[in-house]
Amino acid sequence: MQVDFTIIIDLIGTFAFAISGIRLASHKQIDWFGAYIIGLVTAIGGGTFRDLLLGVTPFWILDAKYFITTGVALLATLVFKEKLFKMGNTLFLFDTIGLGLFTIVGITKSLDAGLPIWVCIVMGTITGSVGGVVRDVLLNEVPLIFRKDIYALASIAGGGVYFFGNFINLPVGILELLASLTVIIFRIVAVKFHIHLPQLKPLESNSGKKK
Amino acid sequence: MQVDFTIIIDLIGTFAFAISGIRLASHKQIDWFGAYIIGLVTAIGGGTFRDLLLGVTPFWILDAKYFITTGVALLATLVFKEKLFKMGNTLFLFDTIGLGLFTIVGITKSLDAGLPIWVCIVMGTITGSVGGVVRDVLLNEVPLIFRKDIYALASIAGGGVYFFGNFINLPVGILELLASLTVIIFRIVAVKFHIHLPQLKPLESNSGKKK
Amino acid sequence: MQVDFTIIIDLIGTFAFAISGIRLASHKQIDWFGAYIIGLVTAIGGGTFRDLLLGVTPFWILDAKYFITTGVALLATLVFKEKLFKMGNTLFLFDTIGLGLFTIVGITKSLDAGLPIWVCIVMGTITGSVGGVVRDVLLNEVPLIFRKDIYALASIAGGGVYFFGNFINLPVGILELLASLTVIIFRIVAVKFHIHLPQLKPLESNSGKKK
Repeated sequence: MQVDFTIIIDLIGTFAFAISGIRLASHKQIDWFGAYIIGLVTAIGGGTFRDLLLGVTPFWILDAKYFITTGVALLATLVFKEKLFKMGNTLFLFDTIGLGLFTIVGITKSLDAGLPIWVCIVMGTITGSVGGVVRDVLLNEVPLIFRKDIYALASIAGGGVYFFGNFINLPVGILELLASLTVIIFRIVAVKFHIHLPQLKPLESNSGKKK
Repeated sequence: MQVDFTIIIDLIGTFAFAISGIRLASHKQIDWFGAYIIGLVTAIGGGTFRDLLLGVTPFWILDAKYFITTGVALLATLVFKEKLFKMGNTLFLFDTIGLGLFTIVGITKSLDAGLPIWVCIVMGTITGSVGGVVRDVLLNEVPLIFRKDIYALASIAGGGVYFFGNFINLPVGILELLASLTVIIFRIVAVKFHIHLPQLKPLESNSGKKK
Repeated sequence: MQVDFTIIIDLIGTFAFAISGIRLASHKQIDWFGAYIIGLVTAIGGGTFRDLLLGVTPFWILDAKYFITTGVALLATLVFKEKLFKMGNTLFLFDTIGLGLFTIVGITKSLDAGLPIWVCIVMGTITGSVGGVVRDVLLNEVPLIFRKDIYALASIAGGGVYFFGNFINLPVGILELLASLTVIIFRIVAVKFHIHLPQLKPLESNSGKKK
């Protein structure tokens, strides 16, 4: 039952991530194949990079459901078009739930690999955020996440809660639930109240001299 | 004899891929070193990414011929300049033959790693296409392949033929020949008759709210 | 004593690389988190890519000091602002010393992995240069190193000296010192006298037909 529930959230997160990729791709004169790939990379890019860093087989090689879900997302986009984005809040919620789950998956995979806590939090954040970075690079934009960072900070906050709960010996199920909820609430609050970090002011540059 | 033939096609494909990278680089005020690296990345990027995903040693570490062939491609560009591109059709043919071979190499390497059929086709497509994607990212362009996709679809079609042939127990040599020819013919026909997938229409965006 | 000295140079190089990333990021309306990530990627990107190619655990997973040093670099930027860049020559020297050290680290790690000489030089160059490439890709620029290449050529020259010294049986300590100094002097001379490779002239393009 626990497992089924996780799979459903995983698919919902994948779907929402893929949709976010396809939507941004639609503004760049990209064809259906390109949109599929951008959606796919948004959904699986973070986990793939994490697995490469951990030296394990990329998770999607063992399971076709991520490729299929992305196909469903493209199909939904082609069929429902703008109607799909009338449900902006629903998609935002899906995306945020996906972020919460992906973060926890990254943390637990890294814990299983015997890595120190701070690396686990880094891996959780990578799992949640790198897909969006690759999406933006492929679409020739400075990644959104570097300009409005609450996305990754939510993952880091969730990671902090995870290890605090771990430290006080909470059972794993509760731990994971609390950490996911932290990510989700952190992000919803940040978006709702337009909370963001200050921008770095332009510094005098003689970059020609620097690497 | 079989082996020699494959090596020659491999070098021709590498040369054509490198030339395609160097040519695009020439429009971006890049110096000789930059042009070499862009050519190299176009030629070996796909196979390198495939090997990272498969968890094996990148193929070029074991064999200097890809670095040397790229050097020859740069030299040829510097010496023959525009004359080289008068042979546009020859280069196109080389590039397409390279795509066919690279696709099959990716498929057979993945089969040897015991991966399921659909993953093998994905790896064949990655081997053929990712070099061009990295080239375009480094040159600060939205990848050509996302706007005119027949390149990757040709690989996928070749992969389909490979596994259909495998299913009806064709001998490996014939299998590989048929699959390569499928890639090559598919691409030539698509380019000749300007066949391409429809573009995705721009969707209403409130991307500020999305990841 | 040897070890301590290397650690100090490593931290200085990391700091200088991170600063170069943060400075370039400051011109792109990036927030503090984005600046941190760009600085981090500039500092550890080359070594991470090298370790992925070598199939070993990325070096920073085993040691938090690179993440911490990048944090110090961001803090220094926020506190001292333009004052930090008044010390342009000092930073340039740090960056160049870092390049020298990173190159040698890449070479020795690859030698330990039993790789042929030319691959070791490639890995040394990757260690020194790929961080800056990823930084520029994330900031949506054609990498500086492809337009003004002396950066990577200095690494290659240092690699050449390393293996020449190895060939004539110089002791390892002297070898490493000589190779680092070659990188450093090569780069300082190139920057001081504005030495650079010729640019590739634009070639007639019918790129629509090519991959």
